[in-house]
Amino acid sequence: MSEKIHRILEELESRLVEFGRKLHNHAESGWTEFWATAFIADILIEAGYHVKMGREVLDADFRMGLPDDEALHAAAERAIAQGANPDLVEKMRGGFTGLVADLKAGPAARIALRFDIDSNTLQECEEVGHRPFDEGFSSRNNGSCHACGHDGNATIGLGIALALAQLRESVSQNIRLIFQPAEEGVRGALPMVRAGVVDGIKALVGCHMGFKAFHTGGLILGAGKFLATSKFDAHFTGVSSHAGAYPEEGQNSLLAAATASLNMHAIPRHSGGATRITVGRMEAGEGRNIIPAQATLVSETRGETTELNDFMLEKAKKVIKHSAGMYDQAWQIKMMGGCKSGESDAEMIALLRQSAEKVSFFQSELIEDYVEFGGSDDVTEFMAAVQEQGGIASYCLAGTELVAGHHNYRFDFNEATLAPAAEFLTNAVFAMCELDL
Amino acid sequence: MSEKIHRILEELESRLVEFGRKLHNHAESGWTEFWATAFIADILIEAGYHVKMGREVLDADFRMGLPDDEALHAAAERAIAQGANPDLVEKMRGGFTGLVADLKAGPAARIALRFDIDSNTLQECEEVGHRPFDEGFSSRNNGSCHACGHDGNATIGLGIALALAQLRESVSQNIRLIFQPAEEGVRGALPMVRAGVVDGIKALVGCHMGFKAFHTGGLILGAGKFLATSKFDAHFTGVSSHAGAYPEEGQNSLLAAATASLNMHAIPRHSGGATRITVGRMEAGEGRNIIPAQATLVSETRGETTELNDFMLEKAKKVIKHSAGMYDQAWQIKMMGGCKSGESDAEMIALLRQSAEKVSFFQSELIEDYVEFGGSDDVTEFMAAVQEQGGIASYCLAGTELVAGHHNYRFDFNEATLAPAAEFLTNAVFAMCELDL
Amino acid sequence: MSEKIHRILEELESRLVEFGRKLHNHAESGWTEFWATAFIADILIEAGYHVKMGREVLDADFRMGLPDDEALHAAAERAIAQGANPDLVEKMRGGFTGLVADLKAGPAARIALRFDIDSNTLQECEEVGHRPFDEGFSSRNNGSCHACGHDGNATIGLGIALALAQLRESVSQNIRLIFQPAEEGVRGALPMVRAGVVDGIKALVGCHMGFKAFHTGGLILGAGKFLATSKFDAHFTGVSSHAGAYPEEGQNSLLAAATASLNMHAIPRHSGGATRITVGRMEAGEGRNIIPAQATLVSETRGETTELNDFMLEKAKKVIKHSAGMYDQAWQIKMMGGCKSGESDAEMIALLRQSAEKVSFFQSELIEDYVEFGGSDDVTEFMAAVQEQGGIASYCLAGTELVAGHHNYRFDFNEATLAPAAEFLTNAVFAMCELDL
Amino acid sequence: MSEKIHRILEELESRLVEFGRKLHNHAESGWTEFWATAFIADILIEAGYHVKMGREVLDADFRMGLPDDEALHAAAERAIAQGANPDLVEKMRGGFTGLVADLKAGPAARIALRFDIDSNTLQECEEVGHRPFDEGFSSRNNGSCHACGHDGNATIGLGIALALAQLRESVSQNIRLIFQPAEEGVRGALPMVRAGVVDGIKALVGCHMGFKAFHTGGLILGAGKFLATSKFDAHFTGVSSHAGAYPEEGQNSLLAAATASLNMHAIPRHSGGATRITVGRMEAGEGRNIIPAQATLVSETRGETTELNDFMLEKAKKVIKHSAGMYDQAWQIKMMGGCKSGESDAEMIALLRQSAEKVSFFQSELIEDYVEFGGSDDVTEFMAAVQEQGGIASYCLAGTELVAGHHNYRFDFNEATLAPAAEFLTNAVFAMCELDL
Repeated sequence: MSEKIHRILEELESRLVEFGRKLHNHAESGWTEFWATAFIADILIEAGYHVKMGREVLDADFRMGLPDDEALHAAAERAIAQGANPDLVEKMRGGFTGLVADLKAGPAARIALRFDIDSNTLQECEEVGHRPFDEGFSSRNNGSCHACGHDGNATIGLGIALALAQLRESVSQNIRLIFQPAEEGVRGALPMVRAGVVDGIKALVGCHMGFKAFHTGGLILGAGKFLATSKFDAHFTGVSSHAGAYPEEGQNSLLAAATASLNMHAIPRHSGGATRITVGRMEAGEGRNIIPAQATLVSETRGETTELNDFMLEKAKKVIKHSAGMYDQAWQIKMMGGCKSGESDAEMIALLRQSAEKVSFFQSELIEDYVEFGGSDDVTEFMAAVQEQGGIASYCLAGTELVAGHHNYRFDFNEATLAPAAEFLTNAVFAMCELDL
Repeated sequence: MSEKIHRILEELESRLVEFGRKLHNHAESGWTEFWATAFIADILIEAGYHVKMGREVLDADFRMGLPDDEALHAAAERAIAQGANPDLVEKMRGGFTGLVADLKAGPAARIALRFDIDSNTLQECEEVGHRPFDEGFSSRNNGSCHACGHDGNATIGLGIALALAQLRESVSQNIRLIFQPAEEGVRGALPMVRAGVVDGIKALVGCHMGFKAFHTGGLILGAGKFLATSKFDAHFTGVSSHAGAYPEEGQNSLLAAATASLNMHAIPRHSGGATRITVGRMEAGEGRNIIPAQATLVSETRGETTELNDFMLEKAKKVIKHSAGMYDQAWQIKMMGGCKSGESDAEMIALLRQSAEKVSFFQSELIEDYVEFGGSDDVTEFMAAVQEQGGIASYCLAGTELVAGHHNYRFDFNEATLAPAAEFLTNAVFAMCELDL
Repeated sequence: MSEKIHRILEELESRLVEFGRKLHNHAESGWTEFWATAFIADILIEAGYHVKMGREVLDADFRMGLPDDEALHAAAERAIAQGANPDLVEKMRGGFTGLVADLKAGPAARIALRFDIDSNTLQECEEVGHRPFDEGFSSRNNGSCHACGHDGNATIGLGIALALAQLRESVSQNIRLIFQPAEEGVRGALPMVRAGVVDGIKALVGCHMGFKAFHTGGLILGAGKFLATSKFDAHFTGVSSHAGAYPEEGQNSLLAAATASLNMHAIPRHSGGATRITVGRMEAGEGRNIIPAQATLVSETRGETTELNDFMLEKAKKVIKHSAGMYDQAWQIKMMGGCKSGESDAEMIALLRQSAEKVSFFQSELIEDYVEFGGSDDVTEFMAAVQEQGGIASYCLAGTELVAGHHNYRFDFNEATLAPAAEFLTNAVFAMCELDL
Repeated sequence: MSEKIHRILEELESRLVEFGRKLHNHAESGWTEFWATAFIADILIEAGYHVKMGREVLDADFRMGLPDDEALHAAAERAIAQGANPDLVEKMRGGFTGLVADLKAGPAARIALRFDIDSNTLQECEEVGHRPFDEGFSSRNNGSCHACGHDGNATIGLGIALALAQLRESVSQNIRLIFQPAEEGVRGALPMVRAGVVDGIKALVGCHMGFKAFHTGGLILGAGKFLATSKFDAHFTGVSSHAGAYPEEGQNSLLAAATASLNMHAIPRHSGGATRITVGRMEAGEGRNIIPAQATLVSETRGETTELNDFMLEKAKKVIKHSAGMYDQAWQIKMMGGCKSGESDAEMIALLRQSAEKVSFFQSELIEDYVEFGGSDDVTEFMAAVQEQGGIASYCLAGTELVAGHHNYRFDFNEATLAPAAEFLTNAVFAMCELDL
């Protein structure tokens, strides 16, 4: 079978490169992946997948950090103008991007793969020497840029999808492919989990280009020590007043926010492990001589475990609440994203090693079992959900040398990795089908 | 009549000096004036006054800044040991010092004079050159010292009392003399007012030695612009924890108190007039490596008007409450004293000028109508109560050069002022009897 | 003479109204009054005045709160496009707006009048019912609006100028008219004073529409108790870092700015009089997960006297400097405006009263001698300079009912006041010529 | 040889118990161990050791957290009164306690053992059931109590010393015994190191009763992951002023200290490992109505590595310096103690295991190689110095069940451990002599 898989992916390779470039060219940031979702859906539907979209795969109440209605509308219209299937876009109206595709009509899938599809909010490099620019596929969408390789991740997913479709008869089980929106800001996984997208799933694998896998021909089979994180904005609304004439009539939002910022950073360290807190941005007040009546803090917490992050978040909320109370502010904490900590399972890592070793592209000395991720990726929401229902999961990293780091406007990866990575995971799907789930 | 008054006070002078020295020698701080009250009561009862003491003249619920039971007990025992009438001390048990004396059995008094009797908590100077020490009447009570002249104030009151007693038949009305405890810390007036001590009073005069009247032979007839003030302590109780091993388990009282201090000082200035806020003392925590679980702030607010002080106090309370909440503290604000702002009435000042001019001791070029007090004295509680029921009031200052300022451990005043000041105010009593109250 | 003056102004009235509307229509904010200055200059030159402009009347080093080069260039081009004399605009390039006009070639003027010409940065109301909109003279310049009546002030100045020109032969002295830029933000007076514009001036009068003179037909002849003020921005530059990965590598500008804000507001109250401090705006940081590496505070201090304001400013600078030091920030305090406190002279008020009573438009019961200004206007820089060289000065307010308050986007005044105000001050010029300066 | 050692220690056991009780009974806190040092010196001199004391073994400039002269004098007098050899006490005048003893006159020692001798500042339990109280050897020195077992540590050292003295001829090398003062507060090691006490030492072992070795019959052979720590006090001196009358004249130490406290706790977390910072105590100000003119912060930092602790300390110093500058304070940071992080060497642990297994008292299943210490002990200063010069070191823990934890006023250990622990380490000395150092 691995032979057969190898040949299929070899044939698909040029198409995959084309898919990746199209996705790169149509970079769309979180909750606006209208074009990308429609593009993927069209391919999967044609390949015979059972595709679900919209509210069926996203619990509206758990979507965080949503752009405003106007921005969502504009992005949908842009996608249509760029050729997206209008019927599909219609299903996503209001920011219901992403999709779930089942290989077979039934029975319920127990095996799933997850790929993210959103871009960064960043202006892509438009200088000679930046390959996507030189070769004409850099982002056409101002302020959106695939600088984290999700275009590659989604392409690997498409490669697996098309390979499995060709081999449908040989696949003993139903297989689910999840194309998640809004990974940046760790926002898209939770509403999918809450919509039941991984209910019943017992084996889950995700895959990401690069990160700590720096060599083309290399792989990291499992990542762990994901940091749990919470993203949130705090809004304070006070009372303005002429600062010279009636300072006593103001309720000062700026001082409330300053007090909150200082005291949030003074939350105690934790003996249980590493924690983080940052107020990354503060905007407060209007004019020089007006007591400030509004302030916003853009903030995040992190923790080596979900519990540590929760500790930080609860403390931060208390600080914000009472900083507001001290200055008689109306206040609101708006959750903008977040995810749990996470660990890959040794059993899945072992399975992946066997699958990887079947792919000649990968050199065994460049295949590592495990890396501490040290950052956040909301794949952990899927992993935790699967693990809580008794399943196993892993997050693997497909090696590629990088011209510039993730989130840098010159980011680019080696396209040679796409097809072999899809080959590796198609093999893994067949191996998972052999598990006693 | 002024001639007669002059002769009476001339005869009383040496006794008054003796009274003043005895009071000085038995200095007792606020709520412990057991000896002084008994001493005054004995004199007034013998002179035929109707004396009320204890709970009759003090509403227990409004006494602030009370020493603890042990200290009150010790002070009462000390007074008895120093010769105070045990029956009178019994009436004051638990810190019910001070008294009210009516010249006549009835009708209800409409005229009142107020004098304070407490000492400072200060160690008196025990060096040659300090007159009370040289002449053997410096304080026998360790840590208590009459460094604000309340011994003189009370003596003037006794002078007036004895003069009026001699002239009882000529006095057309009942006259009330109020000997107030605990003026230091502005604590004694409010419980007297709440006990009804000035109910029905339509004319009230208080008198204080020195302050802004720097010349013997001088007088200031009315003081105004008293600052309203509130004295309070804030206590925070958190949770201690080993700072190295389990920093996250502590609830940090020190940081709560630091946050409160900073934000209290950041309370906005007020367009309505001068305000003040001070955290004068902070004590927090225990050991170097223990998360602090207790903190105390010793604080006060002031305002040019009662409303301004209330503004400051309310803001301060809010800051304290939310600083506590931010750090999960149990907290308490304990009111330790306070009084209103106040103004002397022009009508009373005019009356006092006529009375002053009848006393040859005072030189007209040294008699001033009015001074801005600029500090706090809880005579304002009596003044405000009288003014609110349609009466008039003034607070006058009896001139004396000073060796050292008020509250200094070398404070001393010119005893020559005592009898003339009593003469002046006895004249004023007769003038008040002529008012249409 | 007052009869003659009355007739001249009566004749000028319709022209003055037209002038005012043109200025209103060409609203330009501080340092961009290219059109307005050229407009005024053209009129004055034609009337025979000796006009000085540019660096001759503005010390470049003392101009604060200057727009950037691009904005200055755009405003100059706009003025030319709107018909301003290009030769005059050339003299003002780089933000050297405003002018000084002498009635005679010599001798040096000892009498001066000062008018401000800049608009607010505000979008004018464009609704039916707003008279300037209804009558077609609302601001053509987006974001600039005469909402403080400086169009009226300048027009009064033009009225006086044209009247004096007609009466040149009768005027016994040289007279200086100062048209000051950038009064909003209190920026324009100081560089004019430093350029020597009031050197040798012994009598100075300024005039402002409305403010505390609420009635058409009314006047306030002298304003005092101007608040001294300093406007400044504080910039902090730190080091950014990934908040999750390397928090220790950041130098946090947001926390520096928060610490500065809190401690600036905690600067002690002053027993010498009212003070103010406000951080009216704070912007800090970039993204949620990046240690903030820049922050800006937009701030001001005020004081009842120049000394009180200096006290506040010095303390604020110290707080900013050390908040920066605490967080290893590069920092800068950029002065954006400022002026002294000020008082009108009784002698000048008396002179103005006589001049006002010669103008039938003003009703004596609506003419007041004095008002506490209670705000800031940098006319005080001129007044102080004149008073320091032994002269006298006053700032008077021309009464007008107002539809909406100063700085409101619906602000409008009664044009009927313009000619009588000019008449009043022309009379005052003749009276000043009689003074022994 | 191990047989011989066993018999010697068996014979010494009752004397060791007596030594331990005497030390317990004469508990002396850091830098006041006059009695204890003299007691140990007398024994060692009699046993033929070459004893050095005073400035020879302590660099005066590196002693931190020294009691004041009066306290040092009183402690020295007390020791003499309690029977200490006055000649020896004389050598320690001014707080030069502790000693170094060499087994032989020469050559220079390459092997050393270190024991600490100071007590806690704590009132010992005086209730029935507390064994030292019941048996009459609880602390005779008020406020000093051996609640950390240093009396036991020193006794083990004495046991080794007497055993080695008996076996002097068989010991192939010179051996150094270090009795260190002031381990509590981590103050005594550094001045010994700086005086050269471990210069040339290539093998060093320290030993402590209990801690994480909870079972009598157990041992932990090596401790690591000591936290580096710095102990320091910050003093602020400002200017006091009457808070009501002249608030502007004060320079507020309390607000400086509050600002420092908040910002010290806001020092960023470090990606390199665990850090700590605590302001454990703050005292500021005097009276309620006086601007505070002095403040003290009692503080410490910690770090998983010396570098991490240095990061915290440098940041803390910067915060303190600029909080002081912000409020015009004179300030001082007084280092009160500190030590590096530390690790035991595997080679020494292996050697110790062999030595331990020769002692029948210890049960092999209760002997552990390694524990993470997780706290601070300034034995690390000696260990680091030895390791830096190419030597090896370990810190071992002698097992004992505990009635109450370290630093608890009911602390007590099992005396049965003393002689076997000395036996174990005497064996280790012989093993170290075999090393190629």
